[in-house]
Amino acid sequence: MGKGRLEAFSDGVIAIIITIMVLELKVPHHPDFNALLPLWPVFMSYVLSFIYVGIYWNNHHHLLHAVQEVSGGVLWANLHLLFWLSLIPFVTAWMGENHFETGPTAAYGFVLAMCAVAFWLLTLMLVSNHPKNATLAEATGENRKGKISIVLYLAGVALSFFAAWMGFLAYAVVAALWLIPDRRIEAKVVEEEEKAAQEEEKAAVKAGE
Amino acid sequence: MGKGRLEAFSDGVIAIIITIMVLELKVPHHPDFNALLPLWPVFMSYVLSFIYVGIYWNNHHHLLHAVQEVSGGVLWANLHLLFWLSLIPFVTAWMGENHFETGPTAAYGFVLAMCAVAFWLLTLMLVSNHPKNATLAEATGENRKGKISIVLYLAGVALSFFAAWMGFLAYAVVAALWLIPDRRIEAKVVEEEEKAAQEEEKAAVKAGE
Amino acid sequence: MGKGRLEAFSDGVIAIIITIMVLELKVPHHPDFNALLPLWPVFMSYVLSFIYVGIYWNNHHHLLHAVQEVSGGVLWANLHLLFWLSLIPFVTAWMGENHFETGPTAAYGFVLAMCAVAFWLLTLMLVSNHPKNATLAEATGENRKGKISIVLYLAGVALSFFAAWMGFLAYAVVAALWLIPDRRIEAKVVEEEEKAAQEEEKAAVKAGE
Amino acid sequence: MGKGRLEAFSDGVIAIIITIMVLELKVPHHPDFNALLPLWPVFMSYVLSFIYVGIYWNNHHHLLHAVQEVSGGVLWANLHLLFWLSLIPFVTAWMGENHFETGPTAAYGFVLAMCAVAFWLLTLMLVSNHPKNATLAEATGENRKGKISIVLYLAGVALSFFAAWMGFLAYAVVAALWLIPDRRIEAKVVEEEEKAAQEEEKAAVKAGE
Repeated sequence: MGKGRLEAFSDGVIAIIITIMVLELKVPHHPDFNALLPLWPVFMSYVLSFIYVGIYWNNHHHLLHAVQEVSGGVLWANLHLLFWLSLIPFVTAWMGENHFETGPTAAYGFVLAMCAVAFWLLTLMLVSNHPKNATLAEATGENRKGKISIVLYLAGVALSFFAAWMGFLAYAVVAALWLIPDRRIEAKVVEEEEKAAQEEEKAAVKAGE
Repeated sequence: MGKGRLEAFSDGVIAIIITIMVLELKVPHHPDFNALLPLWPVFMSYVLSFIYVGIYWNNHHHLLHAVQEVSGGVLWANLHLLFWLSLIPFVTAWMGENHFETGPTAAYGFVLAMCAVAFWLLTLMLVSNHPKNATLAEATGENRKGKISIVLYLAGVALSFFAAWMGFLAYAVVAALWLIPDRRIEAKVVEEEEKAAQEEEKAAVKAGE
Repeated sequence: MGKGRLEAFSDGVIAIIITIMVLELKVPHHPDFNALLPLWPVFMSYVLSFIYVGIYWNNHHHLLHAVQEVSGGVLWANLHLLFWLSLIPFVTAWMGENHFETGPTAAYGFVLAMCAVAFWLLTLMLVSNHPKNATLAEATGENRKGKISIVLYLAGVALSFFAAWMGFLAYAVVAALWLIPDRRIEAKVVEEEEKAAQEEEKAAVKAGE
Repeated sequence: MGKGRLEAFSDGVIAIIITIMVLELKVPHHPDFNALLPLWPVFMSYVLSFIYVGIYWNNHHHLLHAVQEVSGGVLWANLHLLFWLSLIPFVTAWMGENHFETGPTAAYGFVLAMCAVAFWLLTLMLVSNHPKNATLAEATGENRKGKISIVLYLAGVALSFFAAWMGFLAYAVVAALWLIPDRRIEAKVVEEEEKAAQEEEKAAVKAGE
């Protein structure tokens, strides 16, 4: 089964998730700039979540790029990822509205950790469905960055109980880690394509002899 | 007429349906974890509906995969399905907000039953437009699972009048039935493609002689 | 310039328009079926608008199907159409909430009339950009149905001032007119494709001689 | 990496942004036409923002049309643009609800200026990734219109502090500037395609000799 609709549907859901978060920026009823001040924690959490959802879209893009076909299992692993992503607007709003207090900040980290786990499961499902896709297998490899992220999310959850800003900091660090785009798969794909092109060329040369 | 835009439009509508349901998870105004407790029935109904909409997207994906062209009748049968799907967020919110009482739970089952009927009509329309598409005809076949689902939905509606949780249970059973993805069409398509590939190969061999 | 993104963007906007209307079905706070009763005018106007937006998507689909390229003018004519379509949720909600009184019912008809005018402009723009596209020119032809619709909408607006239900009836009649899908372009396209196929065949036969 | 998903995702986000703005047109609770009067500043700001978002979609369409591949840096430059665009509904609503007073009108101009800067960055990123793409380089050229826009936005922000309507006027002037679609890239692409077609023809003629 082609991956086209999986990508289109995921793009749709992620586009909506990233956009409805802005609805939490409630429009002030006064025209003074001061009226914007109470919004700043909401805005900060919006910025962080926008970056996170952007990272997931980016990585999803890279991951799916390495395969051509998807199975029923992959469809469900993908929906599972979208489910956890869909909770990001909720925890973002809760965290923003309560000025980064312990409960919401810990809940935010928990949802991020579940998103990371879901992304990992999707990766595993894709790899198990493409056992011969060396590109994908090597590229997703040990998933070190993914594992570190999960540890940092859980650390962030724990830190939130001491001081919520420490939890927030942990999440910001993970975001920074990922803002450096995942070139592993990208590099692999390029390499593979070049190899394929060379082989094709060789075959063409042979056929021409 | 190509099926591309039908799929793109349906993906868009389904992506929005699945995502706006999360807006019913109203953000609590307190930062305590206790503030999340009253949300759990809303969350439960969100999870069930997310799975249901996911199932419909999945099955829609499988169904449309078997055809290449769509007629005007199919466009309308598809819009009819989208109409009933669009009512899922409404009944989900009503059920969640009222803690699974009789009325909303019965209404939820009714909308699910209408979605199943609409999906069935879409299948029939596609089959009647592709009378020679053996893949589609055999694959959608007797639609036993679809018929059982409708019976179970109506049973759930009836059970809601005794105890709402029994209705909810009936709907969860149907969801479980479908979570096992519909491999019928998938299997048929693969088979057909292999057959076509073999015939092509034979033709190529013949042409080569 | 390809028409791919124009279609994708229009599909996105229309999908959102058709789906956000359901948010006007405010979730009742009581679990009795009686709580649904006050919603029925909102529901009725939702159904009518769902059908209308569906008709526009359908016709848009048919219209764009006849061309391959779009100019800058077409992009703006299309955005103009989307603008008027985007006001449908607003007038739908106003009409539903006020139980089909004069003001909202007349406003609803006005927006529908503007949508029809905008669709007509889009058609004219496409025809002027494809002067040699006989398929499109003949198919969109006199646009009799479109002109009748505009007259009926304006009649509906006028009738709303006598009795709002008469306005509503006029709009329902137009919807019924269009539910019979616009086979003109569809038929033309099929015909054209057959002709092209025959010519290709002839050319192939000639080349083979 | 192909540009397909980047376009699809951007189309999704922009479609949502352009559509959720209409939700700020709060449905009046009275059926009189008078009930619409207080909405007119909201409506005016909706119209201006609809045009602006339409312009951005249009220019985005033209810009991406000139390239075939996108890098990781382009993905992030694009997300950065979408971030500033996503704030347009917020400032639109704030400006509309407060009848174009100083604060909101200045904030509106600031967000527009940031959108223009983000679009410029995206252009630079694309050019730096396609150093040999003469079409893109020449076409985006000096970006005179973009630079003028930023100056006018900032002038609008400053003017808002004297009289808000002057700021609004400045923004309307920029919109008018852009409504004349950016034919530079379009023209370049057409030219390039013709050149390529001619060369192909020549090559075909040579091969045929």
